[in-house]
Amino acid sequence: MSSRDWDKFLIPYEQAVEELKIKFRGIRKEYKKREDYSPIEFVTGRVKKLSSIFNKAKRLNVSMEEIDTGIEDIAGIRIMCQFVEDIAKVKELIRQRDKKDMDIVYEKDYVNNQKESGYRSYHFIIRYPVQTSIGQREILAEIQIRTLAMNFWATIEHSLNYKYEQNIPPHIRERLVRAAEAAYELDQEMSLIRDEVTEAQQEFETKSQM
Amino acid sequence: MSSRDWDKFLIPYEQAVEELKIKFRGIRKEYKKREDYSPIEFVTGRVKKLSSIFNKAKRLNVSMEEIDTGIEDIAGIRIMCQFVEDIAKVKELIRQRDKKDMDIVYEKDYVNNQKESGYRSYHFIIRYPVQTSIGQREILAEIQIRTLAMNFWATIEHSLNYKYEQNIPPHIRERLVRAAEAAYELDQEMSLIRDEVTEAQQEFETKSQM
Amino acid sequence: MSSRDWDKFLIPYEQAVEELKIKFRGIRKEYKKREDYSPIEFVTGRVKKLSSIFNKAKRLNVSMEEIDTGIEDIAGIRIMCQFVEDIAKVKELIRQRDKKDMDIVYEKDYVNNQKESGYRSYHFIIRYPVQTSIGQREILAEIQIRTLAMNFWATIEHSLNYKYEQNIPPHIRERLVRAAEAAYELDQEMSLIRDEVTEAQQEFETKSQM
Amino acid sequence: MSSRDWDKFLIPYEQAVEELKIKFRGIRKEYKKREDYSPIEFVTGRVKKLSSIFNKAKRLNVSMEEIDTGIEDIAGIRIMCQFVEDIAKVKELIRQRDKKDMDIVYEKDYVNNQKESGYRSYHFIIRYPVQTSIGQREILAEIQIRTLAMNFWATIEHSLNYKYEQNIPPHIRERLVRAAEAAYELDQEMSLIRDEVTEAQQEFETKSQM
Repeated sequence: MSSRDWDKFLIPYEQAVEELKIKFRGIRKEYKKREDYSPIEFVTGRVKKLSSIFNKAKRLNVSMEEIDTGIEDIAGIRIMCQFVEDIAKVKELIRQRDKKDMDIVYEKDYVNNQKESGYRSYHFIIRYPVQTSIGQREILAEIQIRTLAMNFWATIEHSLNYKYEQNIPPHIRERLVRAAEAAYELDQEMSLIRDEVTEAQQEFETKSQM
Repeated sequence: MSSRDWDKFLIPYEQAVEELKIKFRGIRKEYKKREDYSPIEFVTGRVKKLSSIFNKAKRLNVSMEEIDTGIEDIAGIRIMCQFVEDIAKVKELIRQRDKKDMDIVYEKDYVNNQKESGYRSYHFIIRYPVQTSIGQREILAEIQIRTLAMNFWATIEHSLNYKYEQNIPPHIRERLVRAAEAAYELDQEMSLIRDEVTEAQQEFETKSQM
Repeated sequence: MSSRDWDKFLIPYEQAVEELKIKFRGIRKEYKKREDYSPIEFVTGRVKKLSSIFNKAKRLNVSMEEIDTGIEDIAGIRIMCQFVEDIAKVKELIRQRDKKDMDIVYEKDYVNNQKESGYRSYHFIIRYPVQTSIGQREILAEIQIRTLAMNFWATIEHSLNYKYEQNIPPHIRERLVRAAEAAYELDQEMSLIRDEVTEAQQEFETKSQM
Repeated sequence: MSSRDWDKFLIPYEQAVEELKIKFRGIRKEYKKREDYSPIEFVTGRVKKLSSIFNKAKRLNVSMEEIDTGIEDIAGIRIMCQFVEDIAKVKELIRQRDKKDMDIVYEKDYVNNQKESGYRSYHFIIRYPVQTSIGQREILAEIQIRTLAMNFWATIEHSLNYKYEQNIPPHIRERLVRAAEAAYELDQEMSLIRDEVTEAQQEFETKSQM
C-alpha cells in the first residue's frame, strides 16, 4: 500500500477513538449529573502513528496483511481513576457493555500482576464496529485503566522506551523501578483516605447543583 | 418528577446527541481523508430545553408519562449541506446505518413537499441505543438535513415562532414566505454551478494532502 | 529556510488565530449572557497553508524575506453575521479595541463596494502582538466580516478560484455573478424582517436564562 | 445586585480564563513544534462559583463592593508540570510576559515553603485586561503551577476542605500529611530520572515530525 492508502487504513481507527472517548467521557458526566462520585477522572485516546505500527509489526513478526488483527492497540483509549478501587468499578462498566456496543476479546490484569518493569494498568482488548461511508468495519482497540500515579509513571517509561528503543539501560531501569514503588506508595496512602474523599466529592456535586 | 429528576431524564438524550454529532462529523472527516467532496458541510446538535419539552407536550396533548415516545425531537441533530443534491447522498448514508447503530422509525420529506410557511428540510426519526451506567436505554432522536440557505431561513423562523408563540402575524408571515423564496432561488443558482464546485473541492482536498 | 524552519515561522500566526477566535467568540457569549441579540453568529479562523503562501508571494512579487509584511492574510479570522446591519456593529466593536489588544492597519469595504466578481465582505488588516517562549512577535492578520449568504457564496468562489488557478472561465464567472445576486437578494429580504427577529432572539435569551 | 447581575459580573472573568488557557496551551504547542521538551504538561482553568465566592468573602471579611479586589482567585489557571524543575522554567515564562499582556501583582512560593497541610504549588496573582463589548476591564487572576503529584494531592485536599468546611478533623489531616509525603517522594524519584526523560521526549518530538 502507498502512504496515502495507509492514511486511509487509519480512518475507522480514528473514528473509533473519537466515539469511545465520547462514550467514556459521557459516563463521567452521567455520574456528575446523578450527583454521584465518578470512578472515571478523565479519558484520553490516540491512534498509533504509522511509523510506530510498522515498528511494532516488525518486532512482533506481524506481516503487513495481518496488521489489523496482529496489532491490537492501533486504537487506544486510556481511562484515568483517582483511586485503585475505582479501576474495579470501571471494569464492571465495560463488562456491562459486552455484546452491546462493543465485544470484549480478552482482559489483562497488570494491576495485581505488575510487569517486571513496574508497569501497572488494567487492559481490555475489544472489538468495535465502526460505520463508514463504505459500510461497517470492525476494528480492535485497547482500553487501559489506571490511576493518576500509574499513568504518571507509565508516561515516563514510555518516553524512555522510545529513546532506548525498548532497551533501557540497567541503571535507569533500576531508578524506574524505585519510581514505580513511590507511585505505588502514593496510591496506597490515597486509598486510606478514599472513603472520606468519595463522600466529600459526592456532597460537592450535590451542593453545586442546587 | 422533581426538577432534578427531569434533569436526570435528559442524561441519555444528551449522551445520544454527543455520540451522533461525532458520528456524522466523522463522515465529513472521512470524505476529506479520502480526498473526496463531502456531502456534509457541518453538523450541530442540541437537547431540547425542559421548558420547551413541557410546552410542546401541552400543545400536542402528550401526558408526562408518555413524553419519551410522544415527543420525538428531544434529541436533535442537524446536518447542513452545500447543495440540495447533497441531501440525497446524506439520506443514503443514514439508510445504510439502519439496523446497525440506529433504527429508522420514519422519514419526512419537507424538501420536495415544503410546508406552507416556507419551511424546507428532510427529517428522519430514529431510535438510538445509549449505554448508561445503569444499563441500555433506547431513545428517539430527530435528524434534520438541509442546505445552508434552508438553515438560515429556518433559524429565523424559529426565533419568530418563539416570540409569537407559534402565532406569527400575517404580515410577518408573508415576508417570511418571500425570504423563503429568495433562499430557494439561491439554492437553485448554486445547483447550476454544483458540478464545477464539487470537482474543484475534490481537487483542493487532494492537493492539500500532498 | 528549510521546510521545518517554515513550520516554525507559522508558530506565532497559529497562536494569533487561536487567541483571536477565543476573543471574538467571547463577544458572542457576552451578548448572550447579557440577554441581548448578538451581532456575531459564529467565528472561524485558519492559518494559510505554506503552499498557498508561496503561490501568493509569487503572484504578488513578494520576496521570501518580506513575506511577513507582504502577505497580510497568513492569519485569517472570519466573523459571520445574520444580517447586513450587524456588520456595522462588529466594525465598531473592532475599532473600540484599536490600540488596546490589537492595532488596525487599514480597512476595506467590499460590502458597499463589491468586487466585480460579486464578492462582498468587510475587511480589517490588524497588527497583533503574540507572546512566544522566545519573546514578543507582532504579526499581521486579516479579519473578514460577512453575512451567512455572503459567506456561502465566497466559499464556493474560493473553490473555483483554486481549481482554475484564479482564471475562472467566463461562462462560470457569469453563473457566479447570478448566484451572488441571489445571495444579495436573500440578504435584502432578511433585512426586512430583521427588527422582528432581533427582538425575538433577545426575548429568547432572556427567557431561557430564567 | 440581583443573581442575574452577579452572572454578568463574571463575564470578564470567564473571558480571561478562556484567553489564558489558550495562551498557556499555546506555549506547550510551541515547544512541541520547536521539537523541544515542554515544561508545561497540561493546563486547566475555572471561574469560581458564585456560592464559593460569597463564602470566601465572608470568611475573609470582604464586603460585596470590594469583591473584585478582595478575592484574587475568581479567575484561576492551573499549569501542570511533569517535574519539579519545570516549575522554575514556567515561572520565567510568566515573568517574561510582565507588563506585556499581563501584570504580575505578586508571587507566592509554596513549593519551597510548603503549607502546614502539605500543600505545595507556586502561585502568581496577575492583573489581566479583558476587552468586553462595553470597554476594557482589568481583573485579577491566580495562576497555580504544580507537578502532577502535587496536583493529585491538592485535588483531594480540596474535596475534603469542602466537605468539612475548612475544618478537616485531625486524624484525616494526619493521613493527608502522609499522602503529601508520598507525593513528595514520587516527585523526588522522578527528578532523578528527569534528564534522561527530557532528552527522550525531545527526541520523540523530533522524530515524530520527520
